[in-house]
Amino acid sequence: MELVWDGKQVKSDEASAVTALIRGCYGENKKGVVHLGAEEALYLMDVRGATCTDASGNRMGFNELAGKFSKKKKLLARYLTYKDWRDRGLFIRKEEEATGEYGRSVSRKYARGEGKLELPEISGAFFKDDLLCVVDGADAGSVLYNEYWIGQMGTYKASHRGSICKLDIFEALLLSEMGKLEGCSKKEMLSAAKERIGYFGDIYSVYREWREAGYVVKTGFKFGTHFRIYFPGAKPGGGKDWVHSKHVLHVFPKQSSLLISEWARAIRVAHSVKKTFILAIPGEGKKKKGEVDFALYYRKGMGVETPKEGKPAFLMLSLSEDEYLSGEELAASLGVCSRRGLDLLVAIADRETAVTYYLIKRIELPKSKYEYYEIEWMQP
Amino acid sequence: MELVWDGKQVKSDEASAVTALIRGCYGENKKGVVHLGAEEALYLMDVRGATCTDASGNRMGFNELAGKFSKKKKLLARYLTYKDWRDRGLFIRKEEEATGEYGRSVSRKYARGEGKLELPEISGAFFKDDLLCVVDGADAGSVLYNEYWIGQMGTYKASHRGSICKLDIFEALLLSEMGKLEGCSKKEMLSAAKERIGYFGDIYSVYREWREAGYVVKTGFKFGTHFRIYFPGAKPGGGKDWVHSKHVLHVFPKQSSLLISEWARAIRVAHSVKKTFILAIPGEGKKKKGEVDFALYYRKGMGVETPKEGKPAFLMLSLSEDEYLSGEELAASLGVCSRRGLDLLVAIADRETAVTYYLIKRIELPKSKYEYYEIEWMQP
Repeated sequence: MELVWDGKQVKSDEASAVTALIRGCYGENKKGVVHLGAEEALYLMDVRGATCTDASGNRMGFNELAGKFSKKKKLLARYLTYKDWRDRGLFIRKEEEATGEYGRSVSRKYARGEGKLELPEISGAFFKDDLLCVVDGADAGSVLYNEYWIGQMGTYKASHRGSICKLDIFEALLLSEMGKLEGCSKKEMLSAAKERIGYFGDIYSVYREWREAGYVVKTGFKFGTHFRIYFPGAKPGGGKDWVHSKHVLHVFPKQSSLLISEWARAIRVAHSVKKTFILAIPGEGKKKKGEVDFALYYRKGMGVETPKEGKPAFLMLSLSEDEYLSGEELAASLGVCSRRGLDLLVAIADRETAVTYYLIKRIELPKSKYEYYEIEWMQP
Repeated sequence: MELVWDGKQVKSDEASAVTALIRGCYGENKKGVVHLGAEEALYLMDVRGATCTDASGNRMGFNELAGKFSKKKKLLARYLTYKDWRDRGLFIRKEEEATGEYGRSVSRKYARGEGKLELPEISGAFFKDDLLCVVDGADAGSVLYNEYWIGQMGTYKASHRGSICKLDIFEALLLSEMGKLEGCSKKEMLSAAKERIGYFGDIYSVYREWREAGYVVKTGFKFGTHFRIYFPGAKPGGGKDWVHSKHVLHVFPKQSSLLISEWARAIRVAHSVKKTFILAIPGEGKKKKGEVDFALYYRKGMGVETPKEGKPAFLMLSLSEDEYLSGEELAASLGVCSRRGLDLLVAIADRETAVTYYLIKRIELPKSKYEYYEIEWMQP
């Protein structure tokens, strides 16, 4: 197949090539001439054995053609994720074509617990260096632990081993803000926490929102996330009756920014222990124009959906391992998806050009201030 | 059991208590009076039902006594890890008592490959925004990929799918520093990498050291670490013959500092996929006095080793989930262990006071500039 770089874009007007390109859903057909996007042309050269010449008839290599698009952001991340989707036998088109309100994204509903969160009064001492609060006296601690699953009596999974109850910094602040904790200064706790934990205010707000919705929210340390959660009504068990959490909750504030490799690491641990990963995106952000890269067509029954007859299933955000992503950028991309009624598929090309996919679905938690999403690792 | 706070420390001189304390390996016996450390006294009160009174005979609670030691750093982290070890039926003493050169730490040996790393000359183009370098032309790329496992031909695990070879930033720089990469500016690549990746220089030095020792070093993205490694001689396979790496390598520069929760997250992913986790600690650090918290006595045959007759097995570094650890601090603690011939056991109390253990063993990689350690999750 012969392609031509006309100084602005890649085209083909050779009859057999045009037929093949149209059949393969590459480019746009304008009066018998197919205009190709950068990723499409590079793919045809790299994988399909196409050749490309410039206006003077000189043959161009992959790097020479790619160099023509060097002002395009993250060209290789886009190319590699495009290639991966194509290599799976699935269709992929530029995102601008997916203009409908497809109604394909269905949010997951999370119910609130009944009633309002009312906590008992208690008194404790704050240990600044450890960000922990100790409630001395087994009776008070027991009620808090057994009825509300706040704090930890004795030892984890062995609450009888010890007579003090330990509150983590989130629990201590919650009690304090509700006026239920004597003996600890809210101001001191807050300032110690903020000094130690980045974006503490945002993380705490998310904690409080889920606690007020009736969920039990405990540390997610074992699963590499900020929290793990239990649905309303969960009580701490012991021994054989221990209730396992099925969800972990991680907070990605709008103003924060993470290397993709770090972002993905948090999701991987959760996946490896078969927990549903919930991402919270709190905080104030400038309203950014959301970016997405491609519209993706997926499988349908035994076949695949085509751009000719079908509808796209996802919008793709193409990233590479060594890139940064901010909470704000992710929120903006999710906003685009929500308006078009499609789910977001985050595609990450690692340094070895293997692509990993994460599907992001919106969660509805009634009356919540913030946005929450389930993220799952997906093999398309 | 009755304990007394004399204004400076906790003691007991009651005959039956003294007998029980000595038998239980608590405190120091000075002429029939047992002097207890803070963690020991708190443990006896919290778990063993001991009571403590001050000089005037007033009964003190846990928080009141703990308050007397509030100038001690990370008192609760120390207490909670002390308690966890004790609750396992094992003995634990203050680290100052472990003064011998016990010779109990045996380092793991990693062999170097034979010969010197010689790479072929190649030419490529650098894509700054993606930190990737593309080698155009299947022949040159194939040799590099198939013989040296540098770069990625085609697609990961399907090297025939495509005609270009992609080099990651570490591979491209290695070739460039060896004078084997045309078409890319070393200066441009280095500055792009440093702008994007924190401590890039340190991470690259570690990469280069293992490559020069004959190891294959590829991205560890799928395992949440900087790299995964293959032993000298490994070649990329395909399909059923794919060689799985058994080791991941993560770089923790001396000058960097991490929240314990983030530090542990990297180790967890590796553990969940059954890889051996190797930590590199490169970089310049001020010589710190190394801190360790306790000397630990472990199991022996069907019983346990005692401080009376046995030797300690580990030194413990007690930390909590929300604390920071720097590469320098960890290196200094490991230095203490090495001088005493014991392994380091890092004990992390999470917000729920459950304790997780990581055993750290020194690695010997002949001729290496840096220090390397295997870290494994351990359930004592």
